[in-house]
Amino acid sequence: MSNFKWEVKYKLKNSKARVGKISTPHGDIETPAFIFCATKAALKSFSTYDAKKNNTQVILSNTYHLMLQPGSNLIANHGGLHKFIGWDGPMLTDSGGFQIFSLGYGSVADEIKGRRTNSKIKKTLININEEGAVFKSYINGSNVLLTPEKSIEIQRDLGADLIVVFDECTPFNVNKNYTYHSMLRSHRWAKRSINAFNSKLKYEPKNGSSGFQEIYSIIQGGVFKEMREESIEFNENEIHSFGVAIGGSLGSNKEQMKEVVNFTASRLINTKPVHLLGIGDPTDIWTFVEYGIDTFDCVSPTRLARHGAALVKGRKGKINIKNIEYKENINPIDKNCLCYTCKNFTLSYLHHLFASHELLGLQLITNHNIFFINNLMKTIRTAIKNNDFEIKRKEWLES
Amino acid sequence: MSNFKWEVKYKLKNSKARVGKISTPHGDIETPAFIFCATKAALKSFSTYDAKKNNTQVILSNTYHLMLQPGSNLIANHGGLHKFIGWDGPMLTDSGGFQIFSLGYGSVADEIKGRRTNSKIKKTLININEEGAVFKSYINGSNVLLTPEKSIEIQRDLGADLIVVFDECTPFNVNKNYTYHSMLRSHRWAKRSINAFNSKLKYEPKNGSSGFQEIYSIIQGGVFKEMREESIEFNENEIHSFGVAIGGSLGSNKEQMKEVVNFTASRLINTKPVHLLGIGDPTDIWTFVEYGIDTFDCVSPTRLARHGAALVKGRKGKINIKNIEYKENINPIDKNCLCYTCKNFTLSYLHHLFASHELLGLQLITNHNIFFINNLMKTIRTAIKNNDFEIKRKEWLES
Repeated sequence: MSNFKWEVKYKLKNSKARVGKISTPHGDIETPAFIFCATKAALKSFSTYDAKKNNTQVILSNTYHLMLQPGSNLIANHGGLHKFIGWDGPMLTDSGGFQIFSLGYGSVADEIKGRRTNSKIKKTLININEEGAVFKSYINGSNVLLTPEKSIEIQRDLGADLIVVFDECTPFNVNKNYTYHSMLRSHRWAKRSINAFNSKLKYEPKNGSSGFQEIYSIIQGGVFKEMREESIEFNENEIHSFGVAIGGSLGSNKEQMKEVVNFTASRLINTKPVHLLGIGDPTDIWTFVEYGIDTFDCVSPTRLARHGAALVKGRKGKINIKNIEYKENINPIDKNCLCYTCKNFTLSYLHHLFASHELLGLQLITNHNIFFINNLMKTIRTAIKNNDFEIKRKEWLES
Repeated sequence: MSNFKWEVKYKLKNSKARVGKISTPHGDIETPAFIFCATKAALKSFSTYDAKKNNTQVILSNTYHLMLQPGSNLIANHGGLHKFIGWDGPMLTDSGGFQIFSLGYGSVADEIKGRRTNSKIKKTLININEEGAVFKSYINGSNVLLTPEKSIEIQRDLGADLIVVFDECTPFNVNKNYTYHSMLRSHRWAKRSINAFNSKLKYEPKNGSSGFQEIYSIIQGGVFKEMREESIEFNENEIHSFGVAIGGSLGSNKEQMKEVVNFTASRLINTKPVHLLGIGDPTDIWTFVEYGIDTFDCVSPTRLARHGAALVKGRKGKINIKNIEYKENINPIDKNCLCYTCKNFTLSYLHHLFASHELLGLQLITNHNIFFINNLMKTIRTAIKNNDFEIKRKEWLES
């Protein structure tokens, strides 16, 4: 375990924003950092080689998807996820909880953020009880039970550096009483997860996987401050984890989300790295870094790319390459961007690739978006070090 | 024009196989060489950067597709195709004829190779006459006339190093009389193409395109030896071109194709590089190099990859990654292959990517197939230099 370390290196004056370093057996993560999603053991339409070339520090994969296809044993036989996907940097896996409840309730992303949608996603959650959750496999329709112990065992097999306790991702649209009892159950599941993690009875590193991992616990409590406080109390005093994540519902709109995150982060005792689940918007990242968040993950940079949206500085945040206005524009996405896409290709070419249904278009915009987000995080780290966070934020958002 | 040169550097004893060099303003092509298809100004699901990294020497794009989307003027405004697609090596464009007649008759690839299929491709050829060919745009349904002069003008705008005369790609399933009159018309079109090419009235290099190009003419005559001889006579004595391509129908089966190519290539006077259109099978490439072919092009290495077929040595030629036998196989496609895919990923991982519909799978197999074909061509060139062609062919096809 001595391979892991968390250090705060710089703190912004009069703010919780900080520059830190998470050391892992696969290298260091300079924080604030963004964790890109290789959900099914692949960055969508993008190689890990190119991710590294674009300054990516850390990626994650999802327990839920990988346990169903191709199965965690097969990945363990490769020597773990790092070997499987050709990535030698730090990795994280989640616990599977998010997806079970996402598919269970429809779309958790909508639920967590309080959006009410007419999601057509087929609900596959069958039952939640004290033991764990039963859901229907989207691969073969079989019923699968995931428990805290099983989640940890799978995450041991997958062998990511950072793993996460199993929890219920409580949706927004439930009542306070449900949220409270769900939180208490998630706390019990967290204890069981950490006991399973510490017992290591079933775990042996295989085929050169480092065998070393550290675990994150999750702060529950939805939008209710007293519950958030109770959950912080539990996470800080009743279990031991390397890092904490802020989970559960963050409210029904952006203002409420900011309030919940600010309240929760401000009450943490600052001895652990803090992860915020599922946030990828640059404006939000500036805000949440200020509240004390160290790492972020979200599918948005790569998902947006696949829909033709290239990230740009400024409040607008993105442009849609499929827009006819780019058909004859021989400038790059951003003249000052140093990514491969911007140094070599025009908006017109990228527009042509989407108009022609060429998959290369997805890759080139993914390339830009990954570079862009890593550049954003580096800009933020530098701004904290130089104590000119507000100036740099303004430059970024108003350029 | 002085930037172009064709040299034969080594000849295999008792054979027409040769190592040569085509010099262009964008660098040299060591032959025998394979030209990869960036049909619509994109290698399918693959960047030009990665193509270069995999030892690709030369790529082609298609006049037919690019004249309709995004239009050749737009590409000229970029400074030509090289700038448009971020490729600084040699390039070729075809004349548009192949696709017009391909879509006109159904599938020319089937027709040329004599396969009778129930192609569902909508026929869009409206009329062929002395002036040129009228076809329906697949982009907007409008009628488009392509003439030899227009094809050359477009290819001037596109700015590839090597361009091709406009011809009718005569199908197999027509009678001898049609083939003969089609050949004579294609000869007249070749003369008009070369006149247009030499007049350069409409051409000015834009935005840094080299402005220098050379042209290939095409040997017609279908499967009829006396017509092939007449077409060779025409190509060698009545027009001047930098290189020649063997076009038209090559027969109804592989034996006939070999006979037609062997007969045609054996009668050429050897002062020009010889291109064979649309051949990409490694076994065929060994054969046709022996007959005197210098360059090949085909969509097959990249198309096969997108269907999960990875090229391998041996008579079998390819394996299908989607086959269940690869699900748990932790070897690479080829233990001795030095490509990024084989050095980093198992068959099991590649199988998983296809099972999970991850686009990265297409890229990684495309990567292998492009490296594989470039390695094949290098092996062939070395075998000619070392005069052990037969030994190396046997090693390749029987390994």
